[in-house]
Amino acid sequence: MHSSMSTNDTRPAVATRLADLRAAMARHGIAAYIVPSSDPHLSEYLPGHWKGREWLSGFTGSVGTFIATADFAGVWTDGRYWTQAETELAGTELQLMKIPGAASQLHVDWLAANVAAGGTVAVDARVLGLAGARLLGDALRAKGVHLRTDLDLLDEVWNERPALPADPVFEHLPPYATVSRADKLAATRAAMEAHGAGYHFISTLDDIAYLFNLRGADVSFNPVFLAHALIGRADATLFVGEDKVPHELRARLEADGVHLAPYANAARALQALPDGATLLLDPRRVTAGMREAVAEGVNVVEAINPTTFAKSRKLPEEAVNVRAAMEQDGAALCEFFSWLEPLLQDAGRAPLNEVDIDTHITAARARRPNFISPSFSTIAGFNSNGAIMHYRAAPGSCAVIEGDGLLLIDSGGQYLGGTTDITRVIPVGTPSDSQKHDYTLVLKGLINLSSTRFPRGTRAPMLDAIARAPIWAAGIDYGHGTGHGVGYFLNVHEGPQTISPAVPPDPHTAMEPGMITSIEPGIYRPGRWGIRIENLVLNQLVASTEFGEYLGFETLTLCPIDTRCLDRALLRADEVAWLNDYHATVRARLAPHVSGAARDWLMLRTEAI
Amino acid sequence: MHSSMSTNDTRPAVATRLADLRAAMARHGIAAYIVPSSDPHLSEYLPGHWKGREWLSGFTGSVGTFIATADFAGVWTDGRYWTQAETELAGTELQLMKIPGAASQLHVDWLAANVAAGGTVAVDARVLGLAGARLLGDALRAKGVHLRTDLDLLDEVWNERPALPADPVFEHLPPYATVSRADKLAATRAAMEAHGAGYHFISTLDDIAYLFNLRGADVSFNPVFLAHALIGRADATLFVGEDKVPHELRARLEADGVHLAPYANAARALQALPDGATLLLDPRRVTAGMREAVAEGVNVVEAINPTTFAKSRKLPEEAVNVRAAMEQDGAALCEFFSWLEPLLQDAGRAPLNEVDIDTHITAARARRPNFISPSFSTIAGFNSNGAIMHYRAAPGSCAVIEGDGLLLIDSGGQYLGGTTDITRVIPVGTPSDSQKHDYTLVLKGLINLSSTRFPRGTRAPMLDAIARAPIWAAGIDYGHGTGHGVGYFLNVHEGPQTISPAVPPDPHTAMEPGMITSIEPGIYRPGRWGIRIENLVLNQLVASTEFGEYLGFETLTLCPIDTRCLDRALLRADEVAWLNDYHATVRARLAPHVSGAARDWLMLRTEAI
Repeated sequence: MHSSMSTNDTRPAVATRLADLRAAMARHGIAAYIVPSSDPHLSEYLPGHWKGREWLSGFTGSVGTFIATADFAGVWTDGRYWTQAETELAGTELQLMKIPGAASQLHVDWLAANVAAGGTVAVDARVLGLAGARLLGDALRAKGVHLRTDLDLLDEVWNERPALPADPVFEHLPPYATVSRADKLAATRAAMEAHGAGYHFISTLDDIAYLFNLRGADVSFNPVFLAHALIGRADATLFVGEDKVPHELRARLEADGVHLAPYANAARALQALPDGATLLLDPRRVTAGMREAVAEGVNVVEAINPTTFAKSRKLPEEAVNVRAAMEQDGAALCEFFSWLEPLLQDAGRAPLNEVDIDTHITAARARRPNFISPSFSTIAGFNSNGAIMHYRAAPGSCAVIEGDGLLLIDSGGQYLGGTTDITRVIPVGTPSDSQKHDYTLVLKGLINLSSTRFPRGTRAPMLDAIARAPIWAAGIDYGHGTGHGVGYFLNVHEGPQTISPAVPPDPHTAMEPGMITSIEPGIYRPGRWGIRIENLVLNQLVASTEFGEYLGFETLTLCPIDTRCLDRALLRADEVAWLNDYHATVRARLAPHVSGAARDWLMLRTEAI
Repeated sequence: MHSSMSTNDTRPAVATRLADLRAAMARHGIAAYIVPSSDPHLSEYLPGHWKGREWLSGFTGSVGTFIATADFAGVWTDGRYWTQAETELAGTELQLMKIPGAASQLHVDWLAANVAAGGTVAVDARVLGLAGARLLGDALRAKGVHLRTDLDLLDEVWNERPALPADPVFEHLPPYATVSRADKLAATRAAMEAHGAGYHFISTLDDIAYLFNLRGADVSFNPVFLAHALIGRADATLFVGEDKVPHELRARLEADGVHLAPYANAARALQALPDGATLLLDPRRVTAGMREAVAEGVNVVEAINPTTFAKSRKLPEEAVNVRAAMEQDGAALCEFFSWLEPLLQDAGRAPLNEVDIDTHITAARARRPNFISPSFSTIAGFNSNGAIMHYRAAPGSCAVIEGDGLLLIDSGGQYLGGTTDITRVIPVGTPSDSQKHDYTLVLKGLINLSSTRFPRGTRAPMLDAIARAPIWAAGIDYGHGTGHGVGYFLNVHEGPQTISPAVPPDPHTAMEPGMITSIEPGIYRPGRWGIRIENLVLNQLVASTEFGEYLGFETLTLCPIDTRCLDRALLRADEVAWLNDYHATVRARLAPHVSGAARDWLMLRTEAI
């Protein structure tokens, strides 16, 4: 999947907020103030408390950096969000600063060029990634510009700033949790030992949820809770809101040597580490504020969180649970599509809009066992809206599905036994030859990569071109990565592997058995239609030869791929065979879980071509 | 193509040389001495004067770093050379230090770990790349180890060190040189201006040869000459051996504002640059010694040499010349194979060995117009020798071709109008099913990438997996890159593009129209056989769509791909069509250039399957 556009008119408020911010900047002698799109955990989805960039600018996209000076204000964001940002920033004084391609530090260059030597740039280090902070500090220092990181001006100007979420933490239990907390802690400590570290500090919420077999609901879509964790050789401390952990769970944690401490005390614990201690932390997964808090006499070892690797490699028992979740998810989709399709064909139906799609697809999933929540905000784009890669329909602004066209639906669910993410495109009316052409190319890209085998350890980004090749052949490309890692009842976007040309193929992107990744090629014709077909796949060891171990993809997602949009002449025999095999599997696996109209729909849409 | 194994027993000499080196180290108080495999130009092929690593160690591979301490001596090299190094170092005290994968700075880690704080490591900065020198300096400084870069101990111990080559420089003239020296200088100055630089220093020999339309014969295979160049806004200085440039050429250079100066004066010219001048240099293409020579008041801008980009993008007129050179090269190969094949089938023939192959293939090329020299040392590997990726047959050690098997021949020529590089495999006797299987997979890899279209600007490394995918499918991989850039009557290995998973897909690896690259997948079964099929391809703009410009590969190499080794059942219809199309083109293009047995062979080997 790929997130959110709201329609409330925040323009008048933005002007007031900017004026208040500039007054605060003047009080503190700040030439430029930065508000990144992040929180103390460097999360993808932010609790309202840390949606300061959105509050200040009115831009609701998930990625962007806000900067204001006395006479300038702007938001830097990449191509996925330009259309959205243009709309949302229109009528304000905020400039859309476009970040092309991979140059994600362009705002740093801008600051270096536009803030006079001797001036001060401020940013709250508590929400600034360490790696980014280092780049920023170096660039400003080179220009004689000061950097203050101890100021949260939002606190001064944001009167109605949302409180931190108080939702309860709950335990992820067997059979869905397949490894005990004690065993995960032991494995983490072994990795710490390999780094010579007696302490390990974690801020990333999914790493913490994974490690402690805990889940929460503090942010939308990701079943995580706000916490930091400090793991020692014998015990561990979880810094979490005091009332969030129920009493019995607290006792169970204590039994595993896990103590609770107030959420706000994490930095203090780093300050209190004993002289000579060795602390492992991940520079890409902690904030500058936390790094700065570490006591001076502590030896810091920087490496990727061991939990990031461990949670990416799903165990065979977890794969069993994921397969069961996929059956439920696919069955829910059969119910949804068997409701939707006749409706689309009914000339006399009441107007159907894209928000209705979201409502019904979530309701179908909610009827399935172990469903917790959507795994991200449903994307339902009809025709030109399908061509907006991060389009999310919102009540009041979304298109009504009328006439012929292509309907793109990208959705997913959080289940106790796994996280799903699927995109399908269905025709409304009769698809055109051009639409069939594009659809078939996208399918060819999906098939090409889905059927690839590759050496264990292949860097995931290097696989990207295999999905693109059939699309490139027609002079077409798509502006997003081919695939992202997916969590196990955790974040729908999970590292360390990413199949994308924009991601450096560093060693940590190596493909390993048990990883779950999306494969989601697409074609987007602005103003016309968007097509994306997305399955989740599991890395399976498929061969061990004199050349080493080889991995292949087991397709986990179970849902028909609409064959009415196909131009069969563009498919090779082996591609037809792949599709027919897939549909035979989908039919066999989903049939036991559906009945009535849903079953009829499954049978119809899984017919061999 | 992929270099060289000699067989003279240098072991007794190595012991003496090591002892002499250690005595010199002791005199200078040096704890460890490094001899890299490089020269002041960071060349791939070194003049004898700078083959100090080979002289000291006896290891003749083209890549390796020698280090000696009082009680250790070793050579660090990567997997391509392990077998060769094991053989060549056997019986000496030198350790083979294996560099796995991409960790090319492993010797730096070793030094940091093994030299005591306060000790001194020495290396001659005149042959040390700037980027590598920085890494080394940082790593040693962190451990309190000193680094001296002003010592050339080889000069103290190498009594019979070869002199610098004195071969004459000659001009690359129209129609083969398609852009005048003046125009190339103007384009280079425009690029300098874009960097705000009034001076640009170049040490890389192919960049210099390209820029000045000059060629030489100072090293084997690459038609370059030893020189450095300093380009100013109005004139330029070429630092080159005094007697190497003929009088008339000297006058022609002067007319273009190019002055000659003694080769040894380059560093002095950098020391003499005026205060406040801005100098453009390429940190990956100058030595630490040259960088250190730059006067203190000079502002240094680091960027890739503009000539590196310019020479990689062959102009349409150059492509015309390359196509003509390819026809001559292909015709030479028809003559060679039409001599070889009947001989192999002749039971009563005199013994034929791999050196005979080299001799005859070079002789066939030498009969063709505009041929200058081989573009690298011919690799002719029969059966198990074909499985040694960098195998080069040497008189006395090479295998006699006897019995059935596969013969791999990787060879190339330098012509005034282009550089060729081709690998073919032919069967001797009847190939086995396993051999056919491997051969067909390699061909599938070649076809898969050759027929790929991709957006202009795609990073070359990202294309690598497309060639591997059909080979990976069988649980097989090859331990080298898929393709390297190729010069225009210049180096057979040329940047900036490389199709390899070991090369970071940095911006400078972007594919641009006019680039020539090899596509050379392979399968190597140690002790059994090696298969590689290699063509050169030209980046052509093939489509301009709403998604941008798209490139495709024009296959330049013209020579039949042996169809007797094919397992046709493994080929798809589109692959068969590609092969038949290719052979029709080869036949049409080569037929006018061959007659007699060569023509008969061409007709036979280009028959459709």
